[in-house]
Amino acid sequence: MSRLVLKFGGTSVADIDRIRNVARHVKREYDAGHDVAVVVSAMSGKTNELVAWCREASPMHDAREYDAIVSSGEQVTAGLLAIVLQSMGITARSWQGWQLPMFTSNAHGSARIEDVNGAELVKRFQERKEVAVIAGFQGIHQQTGRITTLGRGGSDTSAVAIAAAIQADRCDIYTDVDGVYTTDPRVVPKARRLDKVAFEEMLELASLGAKVLQVRSVELGMVHKVKIFVRSSFDKPEDIDPHGMPPGTLICDEEDIVEQQVVTGIAFSKDEAQISIRNVEDKPGIAAAIFGPLADTSINVDMIVQNVSADGKTTDLTFTVPAADYQRSLDVLGKAKDKIGYQRLDGATDVAKVSVIGIGMRSHAGVAAKAFNALAARNINIRAITTSEIKFSVLIDAAYTELAVRTLHSLYGLDKA
Amino acid sequence: MSRLVLKFGGTSVADIDRIRNVARHVKREYDAGHDVAVVVSAMSGKTNELVAWCREASPMHDAREYDAIVSSGEQVTAGLLAIVLQSMGITARSWQGWQLPMFTSNAHGSARIEDVNGAELVKRFQERKEVAVIAGFQGIHQQTGRITTLGRGGSDTSAVAIAAAIQADRCDIYTDVDGVYTTDPRVVPKARRLDKVAFEEMLELASLGAKVLQVRSVELGMVHKVKIFVRSSFDKPEDIDPHGMPPGTLICDEEDIVEQQVVTGIAFSKDEAQISIRNVEDKPGIAAAIFGPLADTSINVDMIVQNVSADGKTTDLTFTVPAADYQRSLDVLGKAKDKIGYQRLDGATDVAKVSVIGIGMRSHAGVAAKAFNALAARNINIRAITTSEIKFSVLIDAAYTELAVRTLHSLYGLDKA
Repeated sequence: MSRLVLKFGGTSVADIDRIRNVARHVKREYDAGHDVAVVVSAMSGKTNELVAWCREASPMHDAREYDAIVSSGEQVTAGLLAIVLQSMGITARSWQGWQLPMFTSNAHGSARIEDVNGAELVKRFQERKEVAVIAGFQGIHQQTGRITTLGRGGSDTSAVAIAAAIQADRCDIYTDVDGVYTTDPRVVPKARRLDKVAFEEMLELASLGAKVLQVRSVELGMVHKVKIFVRSSFDKPEDIDPHGMPPGTLICDEEDIVEQQVVTGIAFSKDEAQISIRNVEDKPGIAAAIFGPLADTSINVDMIVQNVSADGKTTDLTFTVPAADYQRSLDVLGKAKDKIGYQRLDGATDVAKVSVIGIGMRSHAGVAAKAFNALAARNINIRAITTSEIKFSVLIDAAYTELAVRTLHSLYGLDKA
Repeated sequence: MSRLVLKFGGTSVADIDRIRNVARHVKREYDAGHDVAVVVSAMSGKTNELVAWCREASPMHDAREYDAIVSSGEQVTAGLLAIVLQSMGITARSWQGWQLPMFTSNAHGSARIEDVNGAELVKRFQERKEVAVIAGFQGIHQQTGRITTLGRGGSDTSAVAIAAAIQADRCDIYTDVDGVYTTDPRVVPKARRLDKVAFEEMLELASLGAKVLQVRSVELGMVHKVKIFVRSSFDKPEDIDPHGMPPGTLICDEEDIVEQQVVTGIAFSKDEAQISIRNVEDKPGIAAAIFGPLADTSINVDMIVQNVSADGKTTDLTFTVPAADYQRSLDVLGKAKDKIGYQRLDGATDVAKVSVIGIGMRSHAGVAAKAFNALAARNINIRAITTSEIKFSVLIDAAYTELAVRTLHSLYGLDKA
């Protein structure tokens, strides 16, 4: 017997028929004797409707009222799922964030979870095997007593926080993909589903992982050591063995991964623009002078490469920004030219970032060197390189993205047999 | 400066434009210096949508889950109105039932209000002139901490309960009619709007009043002496003098009505059926034997007429039921024939009840006699008569309903000049 948290997103609960399908997944685990807590999102489309009303009411609106309004979507789904479960003969009740309570910060609209009280849920598991159906995405600020929301996709984070609070054996995230892949299968048909990924890798997989799971929920899982299992909501509930391990990807502590691969996955992003600042003075505070104004205008800077100055006086500095922010970035930097003190500004929008991720890199030398050789052999020019402990990224011409990803995917033995 | 509760129904908050209109009503009172609490219903149609989902989830559903789901409608409207008010420069915040809190019984789906805490609202009126926007229809059960709803139309009751809790000078119910009329203006074009009606009269006006205001809210107003003002939500907010008294009907204590009319209004109901039980034994317990089985099958019995037995042995007993329950009533009584002990059962569905209401009746003799004469002069046959302190009703052939109502309306001087 295990204790499980099951999380279902908006598409899985879009109407009563789909809610019934969710209920059958719950019933399977319940019938197998597991303690079950379910976390649900709003019916798909509902949150958008509520958000649109808030905007129509006033473009600038009180985030506290926004939260009171938008949280109602999850409230409805939780109640409906509880009703369906009861109609199947399962003891179940709905819980709203304020009822648990799930205490959060008062950063309305993007609140941070501070403390979740799972005691009552556990008591009810033990006393009457009651299934808890929890409205995701929402909490309450203890001091003001007002409803908060965790921001878009916050239900994943709710689920992991609840799993931590009730010391669940696993937090199952039911989604429209059946797991995390070594890379995007649309680009590399030979991409494999990963059975296990370490939390740190999942965080670095960024572009691959973000479509599957909220980054915050992975961080939370890492801190509280909550095993997160990404699985498909499309599998027929009755076809799954509740005692076995269905297809999916387990995101877990690296210690739980026995056979650690050197490289776990290849991520890439084409929506990048490169900006280079030439002959900038090599003096303290120069990075702050450049990136301060960009941050002030909410431009998200990614790869930053600064080489050691050859003459000790000036250097070149390269970084990437989202392609959509390219022109705005040039404008911001143009205005700050005197303050920064540089000679020339250049850049390109037709660039892509390709990243290789793997915890095994830490203990294996020469992993990146292999990649540089392989890319060179394909005549792919590397514009810039950054590295971290478990990841390295190269900036290349966008036209070579697919070729580079496929080359590296094969190189590190990720291709499916 | 007064303290006011303003209540707006579903049609008044059906979309953001209408919510803006509501906000202008609030602003008018706020700008005039009044303390304002607003009670809102769900956007029209929303509650029906939520109820339909509950039914689709399961025809027999947990009323606690139903309440959690259905209460979300008012939650949304309250938040949206708070946002619009803020955009007009008015300090405002939304309150849900559990936040006030408004404690109710745990009769989910039709909970009774037990206690409303208005202290925080009053503090905020005084400290920062904050407008309270309250989700109507909902409360919380103190022991279980679960959301309750008051049943359909419960927002009127919420509004009056809040008015009592904050000792409001008046509770304004904005509705799609501009007040309570002496009778249905569609039947009697000369019907007048009443400026004032006593609580007791409003309760007896039943068929007239029920379209305007929930009966429970009137009862609550009577107990707590809350002045309820029924007024039109269609009046342009800016055309109204916040210090004057706009068109509408004030429902108040009879002591507040200086010039008491003998007759206040004429109510009628055509959806009636008459059932007569002939030659029933005149012995103790016979009424219970008849009305018990009807109550058990949820048939609502209205007028009951039992005459004093002429021979001391048997009597006839007549009563009315809703026309839709006629056949079912006959079936129930047919089955219970031996137990009740009667000779014959007869009845009619083409009957109507016409009632004359007025607190002045208490101190004026011969009010009913005048009616009987006037109806006789029109050749309208009276099938049965019942009377109470402030009302009498006659049962007549349905075909004569309009004629009877118009005759009585003129008779008691209710026609508009």
